[in-house]
Formats: sequence, structure tokens, C-alpha cells
Amino acid sequence: MILVLKQNSKKEEIAVLKQHMQARGLIIKDIVGETTSIIGLVGDTSSLQEQDITIQFDCIERVARIQEPYKLAGRKLHPQDTVVDVCGRKIGGGIFSVFAGPCSVESEDQILQIAFDVMNSGAGFIRGGAFKPRSSPYAFQGLGLDGLDLLKIAREKTGLPIVTELMSNDFLDAFERDVDIIQIGARNMQNFTLLRQVGQLKKPVLLKRGLSSTIEELLMAAEYLMMGGTEQIILCERGIRTFETTTRNTLDLSAVPVLKQRSHLPVIVDPSHGTGYWNLVEPMALAAVAAGADGLMIEVHNQPKLALCDGPQSITPETFHNIMKKINRLRDALTEE
Amino acid sequence: MILVLKQNSKKEEIAVLKQHMQARGLIIKDIVGETTSIIGLVGDTSSLQEQDITIQFDCIERVARIQEPYKLAGRKLHPQDTVVDVCGRKIGGGIFSVFAGPCSVESEDQILQIAFDVMNSGAGFIRGGAFKPRSSPYAFQGLGLDGLDLLKIAREKTGLPIVTELMSNDFLDAFERDVDIIQIGARNMQNFTLLRQVGQLKKPVLLKRGLSSTIEELLMAAEYLMMGGTEQIILCERGIRTFETTTRNTLDLSAVPVLKQRSHLPVIVDPSHGTGYWNLVEPMALAAVAAGADGLMIEVHNQPKLALCDGPQSITPETFHNIMKKINRLRDALTEE
Amino acid sequence: MILVLKQNSKKEEIAVLKQHMQARGLIIKDIVGETTSIIGLVGDTSSLQEQDITIQFDCIERVARIQEPYKLAGRKLHPQDTVVDVCGRKIGGGIFSVFAGPCSVESEDQILQIAFDVMNSGAGFIRGGAFKPRSSPYAFQGLGLDGLDLLKIAREKTGLPIVTELMSNDFLDAFERDVDIIQIGARNMQNFTLLRQVGQLKKPVLLKRGLSSTIEELLMAAEYLMMGGTEQIILCERGIRTFETTTRNTLDLSAVPVLKQRSHLPVIVDPSHGTGYWNLVEPMALAAVAAGADGLMIEVHNQPKLALCDGPQSITPETFHNIMKKINRLRDALTEE
Amino acid sequence: MILVLKQNSKKEEIAVLKQHMQARGLIIKDIVGETTSIIGLVGDTSSLQEQDITIQFDCIERVARIQEPYKLAGRKLHPQDTVVDVCGRKIGGGIFSVFAGPCSVESEDQILQIAFDVMNSGAGFIRGGAFKPRSSPYAFQGLGLDGLDLLKIAREKTGLPIVTELMSNDFLDAFERDVDIIQIGARNMQNFTLLRQVGQLKKPVLLKRGLSSTIEELLMAAEYLMMGGTEQIILCERGIRTFETTTRNTLDLSAVPVLKQRSHLPVIVDPSHGTGYWNLVEPMALAAVAAGADGLMIEVHNQPKLALCDGPQSITPETFHNIMKKINRLRDALTEE
Repeated sequence: MILVLKQNSKKEEIAVLKQHMQARGLIIKDIVGETTSIIGLVGDTSSLQEQDITIQFDCIERVARIQEPYKLAGRKLHPQDTVVDVCGRKIGGGIFSVFAGPCSVESEDQILQIAFDVMNSGAGFIRGGAFKPRSSPYAFQGLGLDGLDLLKIAREKTGLPIVTELMSNDFLDAFERDVDIIQIGARNMQNFTLLRQVGQLKKPVLLKRGLSSTIEELLMAAEYLMMGGTEQIILCERGIRTFETTTRNTLDLSAVPVLKQRSHLPVIVDPSHGTGYWNLVEPMALAAVAAGADGLMIEVHNQPKLALCDGPQSITPETFHNIMKKINRLRDALTEE
Repeated sequence: MILVLKQNSKKEEIAVLKQHMQARGLIIKDIVGETTSIIGLVGDTSSLQEQDITIQFDCIERVARIQEPYKLAGRKLHPQDTVVDVCGRKIGGGIFSVFAGPCSVESEDQILQIAFDVMNSGAGFIRGGAFKPRSSPYAFQGLGLDGLDLLKIAREKTGLPIVTELMSNDFLDAFERDVDIIQIGARNMQNFTLLRQVGQLKKPVLLKRGLSSTIEELLMAAEYLMMGGTEQIILCERGIRTFETTTRNTLDLSAVPVLKQRSHLPVIVDPSHGTGYWNLVEPMALAAVAAGADGLMIEVHNQPKLALCDGPQSITPETFHNIMKKINRLRDALTEE
Repeated sequence: MILVLKQNSKKEEIAVLKQHMQARGLIIKDIVGETTSIIGLVGDTSSLQEQDITIQFDCIERVARIQEPYKLAGRKLHPQDTVVDVCGRKIGGGIFSVFAGPCSVESEDQILQIAFDVMNSGAGFIRGGAFKPRSSPYAFQGLGLDGLDLLKIAREKTGLPIVTELMSNDFLDAFERDVDIIQIGARNMQNFTLLRQVGQLKKPVLLKRGLSSTIEELLMAAEYLMMGGTEQIILCERGIRTFETTTRNTLDLSAVPVLKQRSHLPVIVDPSHGTGYWNLVEPMALAAVAAGADGLMIEVHNQPKLALCDGPQSITPETFHNIMKKINRLRDALTEE
Repeated sequence: MILVLKQNSKKEEIAVLKQHMQARGLIIKDIVGETTSIIGLVGDTSSLQEQDITIQFDCIERVARIQEPYKLAGRKLHPQDTVVDVCGRKIGGGIFSVFAGPCSVESEDQILQIAFDVMNSGAGFIRGGAFKPRSSPYAFQGLGLDGLDLLKIAREKTGLPIVTELMSNDFLDAFERDVDIIQIGARNMQNFTLLRQVGQLKKPVLLKRGLSSTIEELLMAAEYLMMGGTEQIILCERGIRTFETTTRNTLDLSAVPVLKQRSHLPVIVDPSHGTGYWNLVEPMALAAVAAGADGLMIEVHNQPKLALCDGPQSITPETFHNIMKKINRLRDALTEE
């Protein structure tokens, strides 16, 4: 960590600062410039917060952190790719995984039909919302635990593991028992209490990036989960909020290679929420594959026009089937020698 | 609600659409243009979601909502200002309220000293964090329930009602019993489960705008709270996330007059989190007063340099005292005939 | 165009509004709702500005435009793809074009070597900056007209047409005479005077999206160019400004399919400026191909470490060669039956 | 400047780097940490670009600049406030200045009537657009040089200096001769050629912040102007582009105190463009005063409903008169002892 000192700081103040840092076990290195003096702190500075330290010592003008603030999620101390294992199915480490299904679970018929359809097209996991975060309290909020029961039936019949969103610790037990991959949604990415509690379950977690969360904040949210002792975390880029309004969000595909450089965790992309329009799902799904994503999460509905939520971004099983074929061709082309 | 139809839509499709809308009790009005046909829906359309309807009917190109999606929080059906009453102290309706105190409650001495100081300078409420949302799991997370006990002592000694943030429904009972105004933080503004549960307590709530939440989303979050049957909601602008990095957030002061035009709820401003720097608190606090805010939430710490969190944005009791004097002069000037 | 009227508007006011619109040759359609009245305007409303009309008539609450504001750039009146023809080389309409070269032209050796290298790897056009927009006046500003001369030598030797940025109308004549495709940079996308003047040259133009420009604004900038009488416009997505700071900009790849749906103009992507880091160029270049782009603009430098500007986002000719091979495999996979 | 070195860099590479920097006259200071090595560069580093240097030397992981990149516009080397002098009227240094007038000059009657009205209410300068940047080529583009002539008549009759926007160097001579303060609009803030050319006129310039420009970029644009040899620059905050759509832009009032801390140049605020709605002009004008602005730029139109552009954000002379009275009361309250 680098501390830039204010010009004309008092010697005594700087001495106090140095003593404080030495007492924390850090080694001090001075750089005295013409107009600026700098102190380099050598050692483990992860417990020092930039903001706190700036205010604590009048003589500090600015603090520059050299080390990344995340340790468990970072690649530095964990260079090899993490491979998440869900009921024997692997995610990450060169394996490509597709999570498909309806935005909301609506009925046994619906979820079964979609589950079989997406399985036959090559999806490895069934996704479906039982609890739905909706910005309007007047909109459909999901079937709740009944939806979870329907997902279990779909899993039993198809063998596909299920991923579904947990919105509240009220249902921690049910999710621990019944869900294969617990999804933390974009709006809960910084619900730190929930992150801690879910991390302690040591189950696979699919963590979606918040609408206005930086890549560093996403990795710090993963860090909260990983402090519970698990590495079974899948990161998901699903679009960020920008000034552009022709798409529901702006899908930040460059987050894929950046995350893969900085972290060992698998990274998937959700082109359905990321764009908000079904006719943008195919181009953005293919683009995500080309950008190096470890998988895709796609909304598929057998009757998108009658879907109880997120209809506009759902595709039909037929469209999904065609996209899967193109994805396979693309992946072949990318891995070809 | 206005439905813009696709060019060359089939007559039968349009007929089905019309029947569906009539079955919902809506009256149909046609506008046939040269290149565009439009259907106007007359009646209560609040249960129709723009996105759902677009996909449900192929013949619809675009939907324009005419009515605002919020009812309880909006001014249309509730033109007079809501005045929140907390232990006899009023917020809104022309009364100016100041919520002051440390970011985190750290010790009995600390909270008592600050509470007396801010009371003597004119604050009407003591704020202080017992549970702290921190982006790093390695940062100080607050004293928890012990912090709440210290706040109760401060209330008992000063008579100031307390406002503190609830991060999880694990502590609903304690907050219902012990806290005067429950704060929902920016990162939980769209934690819909928590909003519902807190709304049912029918206690005063201070609802902070999310970092990337629109004004409409803030009002929809208030709507979730108000569905529990209470009107005791205070809205708080605290800065939004933009590309500008010289401030921690961009304080959106125009949200104050916009919210006051659209909603009957009181609106306060938090210049401490809104800027992130103590030396910007005074100019932005004064600006918020001039923009018409119903109050301010300000971080005050007796030793900002030693504060366990958010030190850089805290001011001393002396600075707070001076700001309060300026605020009073400003309010006199603004209300002068 | 739809005019939503204020509740309780006076009959006389509405009558004046209707007369005004009828005088403009528009046909009036009324929709009277329970709480809202609406007027539909049938006819050519492109000269009506939403903002102007709202203020002109007190009785109007809101205006919703149904027609797109761009005509020449839009696909509605021009459904078939525009194919830009530059010295016999075609861009758009299913043909994939690569524009490669250094950020800045630095010397004859440099530009010649790079030009031959990128030509041999499959680039169809040489790009290189003679005039450079730099946010600091202390940074290298380009060789100016001397740079243009070097580009001409490179064109003569390789046969590759040249594209280079015009920053000012001071050099309109030189660009008209010597440049094959005139580039309008992101910072000049709304330099409307320059757009008009360049449009009148009726030469091919490569128009880059502004850092904070919406897709609609990009198409309106193309409209300014096209009013001069040309259709030879290439649109270029090059990243937008968001809160994310790990990349220089956020490359908005969903703009590619959106632009291609709304406009007949070819759309290319610049992954070099779009990300700002050379090691993100390959994944984002491949992603752009998969998203359906008509081409790529890539910075290549024979000695990126010594480049006078934008070094970090430049790749070597060897890396470029490898990317081109992958692009070809990808395009084969995408167009396979 | 601080250079953070990559772990495991080769000794020889680091030696080359050090030689290069020493050859530039910089002194090298080493900090060797446990996991990170850092080099501090002491001396004048303003000609080093962070990006260039990162790529030039493989062994560099990251560069942190300690010095601000602006010198002429910064307060460090110029601690006292600059006071701009326009025909004997002063701007900055504790004096409050109001620039008022219509968005567009439309006729002699219009500009004269508004000029007299705003002068009588206390405005010190008349503003009015002769050349108008409009995002649609189909919208009114201003009267051009005829508009300039009308402004000169207004100046002659009222004695108020005029400020108007220059969009292109085609009219440099006319603006040099006839305009008292040359305005550079938001869309031209990074038109570097124009900035250089205008800077050489050594006339007062009003520089508006770009829609997506950082505070640092605004100061670098001022730097371009000041390299021509003048200090007569007025900075203007006029709203930035964010995700919020209820206002036309998000007025970033915290830019006022930040700019005044970093720069010696006067800072004014434009609440008309900053919000886009006339009924937000008063609260945001008052807020700007309270935030410490040196002045305001306000759109006033005698018939806002008939204004040829920007009608919705224009206020009437009567409203302007009332706002001016409140501003004076506010300023008295703020400067009171």
C-alpha cells in the first residue's frame, strides 16, 4: 500500500503515522520527491481500509492499494480454475454448461415440458423461479415453495439439477435441502447477511452481478460466500445499468475475460436478462461463447406470450434448440487446432 | 394505456387482443393512422405489465403507459403532504428535521457524547449504525444488537428518537420493539421480502434510494412498504452511481423537487454518503436545503479520524454546529416574505 | 404521435391545440379515458419536437412519439442492407471487413511494415491516425498532414484503402482528396457542423459512437451525414462510458444487433478502444463477430511497447494474424448450413 | 509517479526501465515489498502517459500518478481565485454573476424584451444562441450570424455583455470581433482543435462540461484553452448523463465545491439544461447558490410556449425576477456574519 503525504506535513505527524503502521507489523519505505513524499507499506495490508486511513492521519493525501482486496476469489493465490461439481456435473475448467428454463415456474405441465425440451437440446441444468423479485408489488411474485416442489418433480423426471433464486433467509432450510445450485440475484448481490448465511451452507451458489456493481464488488460478494468455506461459486454477468435504453440492461461481455483473468471461478452469462429482448438472445449468447464464457443461463418458455413474467426476453424451445446447435458449432471452431 | 400495433398485423390477431382487454373490463379506443394503428385502453390498467403484454400479443409493437405505476406513494390520489410522526416529533409538511450521529455506534461514551452534541446543535433524531453493510467482509461490520442497546441508552438520556439500519429479517422483533425509525439501506432498497416484512410492522421507515435506482423504482419500493398499511415513510436521496469518480457517489439533488412533485412523502438528503468527503458535506447540505428537502441525515463523529467506518465523510460536532447555524439562516431566508 | 392531456384541461385550450395540429395537416383522433384524455395525431409528425410541443400547449401532459425520429438511416423506408463501396471493396451486406493499423502513424517504416503485415493476415483496409484527439494537451497529437502523406505511401504500396480521423474542417480539402474513408471520432459524433460539412463530400464515412451517446443519437448523427446525399456510412460501436473502471470503456455489443435491426447501414466494432487493453482485444473481437458485426477495427502496432499513443490496447502483427485465423473459423461456423 | 512492478520480473528488464527513466531526468526510488516491488519516480512526470508506459515495459503492472495532470487550471500553482473581467464586469472571486436569456435568439423584439427584463431583474450578462447544436437535423438550428447581429443590438441597448456558443471555427473571426464571452458547448468540450483555436484568441471563454466528461477532463479541456495564454475561463456545470430519466440530465452540484477546491477558475451552474424542466430551475438555481457557485446561467423566454427550442426548460421573465429575489436573500444569508 502506498501513502501519498500532503505537502508541508509536520514531521511529528508523519512520525506518528509511521509508528502506527509499524505497530501493525508493516515495514515502512520512504520515497521523498521534489513536491511529493510517499510512504510504501510492506506487509499484509488487507485489514487497512483506504478511506479509514486517509481520515485517521491528517498528513495523508491519498492512498493507493497495490494488492487486490479479494483473496479467496482471486487467481493470485489460487491459479488453477475452480471446477464446480453439482451432482457429478461439472461447471468450469473448460466444460461448457447451459442453464435453461422459464423465468417463473408456473405449473407442473409447463416446467416438465420445458425441462424435457431443454434437456433434449443439450441443457445440463434446469432453471426456474419460485420466488421472483419484481419492482412492482402488483406484479406476479412467483409460486413460492409450491414452485420449488414443481422444480423437484422436473428434476426427478429429467435428472437435471435445479438452480433457483433465494430471496430471503426465511427459506434457507428448504433451499439447503432441495436446491442443487442456490442463485443469489442481482438485487441481492450486496445483501451481505444473506451472502454469509448462504456461504455457510457450503452448497454451489450462482452469484449474479448487481445492476450497478463493479467487477471488484462482484468478487468481494463472492469473497463473502467463500468465507463460509466453499469454493463452489459460479459468477454470472447479466447486464449493468447504463444510460442506454434500447436494451433493458447493457450486457458487459468484457467482464467475462476480465473475471477469468482475475478469478479462478467459472463465469457464465445471462443474455436474457442482459438484453431484455428475445430477439437479442441468440446474438448475445453466441457472443458470450466467443468471449470465453463457461456457460449460459437462458430463459426458455414453451409459450412466451403467456409467460407470467419476463415474457419479452424468453425464447421458445425451438429457438433454444437452434441456438444450441450454433453454440456447439462455435465451440468446435474455437477449440479447433 | 396505449398499444401501438405492428404494421400489417392480421385482423384476427387484433380482434383477439381486443376481446382479451374487454374481458379485463377495459374499454377499447381505436386510432388508425397512415402508417400506424393504435389502441387506447380506458380503465384501470395497473395490473397490466408493459413487458408481459408486448410478448403476449404478436400484433403489439410497443406499449406506452399513461398512468404512473405507483398509487399509494403518488401524489395524484393523495395530494396533501404526509407528515410522519415519531414519538410526537413531526417530519415533512414544512417542518425541517435533522438526523445526525456516527456511521457506526462504537461505545457508550462515543454515542452519548455525539448524541448530546448534535441535540444541542439542533438535531431532532440520533442516527447510528449497529449493523453495517460493508463491501469487504474484512471490514468492521458493526456491534450488532449491542450497538442497538447503546442507541437505547442514548435515546433515554437525550430524548432523541433513534434511526438505525435493518439489514436482515433476523432482527425484525428487536427493531420493532426498540427502534423508532427503521432504516432500509441503499443496498436493500430492492430487497422486496424485507420491504414487505417491514411494511407490516407499520412503524416509521426511512427508505434510502439504491445506488442505481431510478426515482420511479424508489417510489415502487415505498409502494411495497405502504402495502402493509402505513404511510409513515421518509424517502432519502443519498447519491447515485455514475462515471464520475472524484466523489463517492453523485448526489442527485434534482431528485428532491421531482420526488416532492410526484409523491406526498417527506424527502430528506444524506450529503455524507452522497459525496463521501467531509469537506463536501456543508456545501451539499446547504444545497439540499435550498432545493427544498424536508431534512438532512448527516454523519457526525467526535473523532472522525478514529471512526471505525466512513471516517472520511464524517464531520466533527463543531463543524455540525456551524452547518446547523447556516441551515437555519438559509431556511429563514427561504421562507421570508 | 400521441398527446396525453392534463386532467381538467380547458375545452378552449384543447380546441386551440387541435386547430394548430390540423393546420399542420395532421388528422386528430380522440381517446377519452376515465382519468385521462389522449389525442392521436395521424400524419407526418417528424418536424414536431416532443419538448417544444409540451411547453407550447399547457393542456399537454406528455408526448409519446410512435415513429422513429430518423428516416434516412432507418430500415423502415430502406429495408435492404446498404453496401458501402470503397475503391471496389465492399462493406456490409454479408461481407466481413477488417480495418487494421496503428493508433498513430509514426514513420514510413512503421506504417509500411504494419500495412503489409495486416494485409497479409487478411485486413482489407489500413487505419492510422494522423490527427489524434488526446484528453491531455501535453500528449502526442499526431503527425498531422505528414501522417496523411505516409498513409498515402502505404496505400500506394499495398493497395489498401485508408481510413483516418478528421478532427476539424480545416482539413476538409485534404481529406476529400486523399482519404478513402473519413472517420468521425467518438468525441466529434455530435459536432453537427462537421457532420454536415463531411456529409456534403459524399465520400464514405466511418462514424464512431460517442462515449455517452445513445443508439438513437448515433443514428441521428448518421442522419446529419446522410442529408448531404450519401448512403456510404459505416457505424462503429467503440465502447460507452459507465461506472465500471476495469475496462477503459464498456463495449456495448448488443448495439450491433439493435443497430442492424433499426438501420440498413453496416455496423463494425472497435475492440481496441472498446476495452483499452490488448489482452481483451481477441475475446471481444471474436464476440463481435458472433454478435453479427459487419467488420472490426483493430489497433495493430509492430512495437506496441514503443507506440506513441494507445500502446496498451495495441496488439502485434503476430497476435493479429492469430485472431484473423480464429475469426475466419468462427465465420465459417456461423454461416455453415 | 509510482510504478508497480510485476511479480517475477527479470532483473534486466527492470534495469532497462530504470535507465530509461533516469535518461528522462527522473530520480529512481525503490520499494521492495514481500509480494510486490515498486519504483517511485521523482521529478517532472507530466510528459509520461500512464497508458504508454504500462505497455512500453513488460515489467510494469500498474502506474499510479501522484501529481494532477493539469497545471494551468489547477489551484496548486495558482492558489488565488481567478477573476474574469468582461468589459469591466467581474466574474469569480466572491462576485456572483447571472447570465440569462433565451435558448435561441429568434427576433429583435424577442431578444430586446428579454434582455431588458433580465437586466432589470439583476442579470449581468445576456445569453442567447445564434448557432444551436440540435441532435436532430430536422430541428431549428438557430439564426446563425443574423442571430449574432441581434445580440449586438441587445448589447448596445442594454449595455449587457453577450455570451453565445461557437460551434465551429468557421466563425472564429466574427466571434472574436463581436462576442464578449465565447461559449464552448457540452458537445464540443473535447473538440480539441476548436479549444486550441479559441484559446489563442485570449478572450473570455465559458466552457461547459461535457455530458459524460469527468471533472478531470473538464479541467484538461480548460488546460487546452489556457495554453493559448489566457486565464479568462469560466467553468460551467450543466448536468451529466446517467441512468435516471425523469430529468434530462443529472445536475452534479457536488462538482461545484470539487472544482473550486481543485481549480482557481470561476464555476457557474446551468440549471436549465441541467434539469430540462422549467419547474426544476428555481430549486436547482437556489441549490447551486447554496453549493457555492460563482454564478448561474438561466434560460429565460418571454413566451416559453412558443420558443423555437428548449421551451420546456425556459422560465418567464416574471419567474426569473422572483428567483433573483430569492437568490439575493440566499446570498445575504450565506455571507452574513
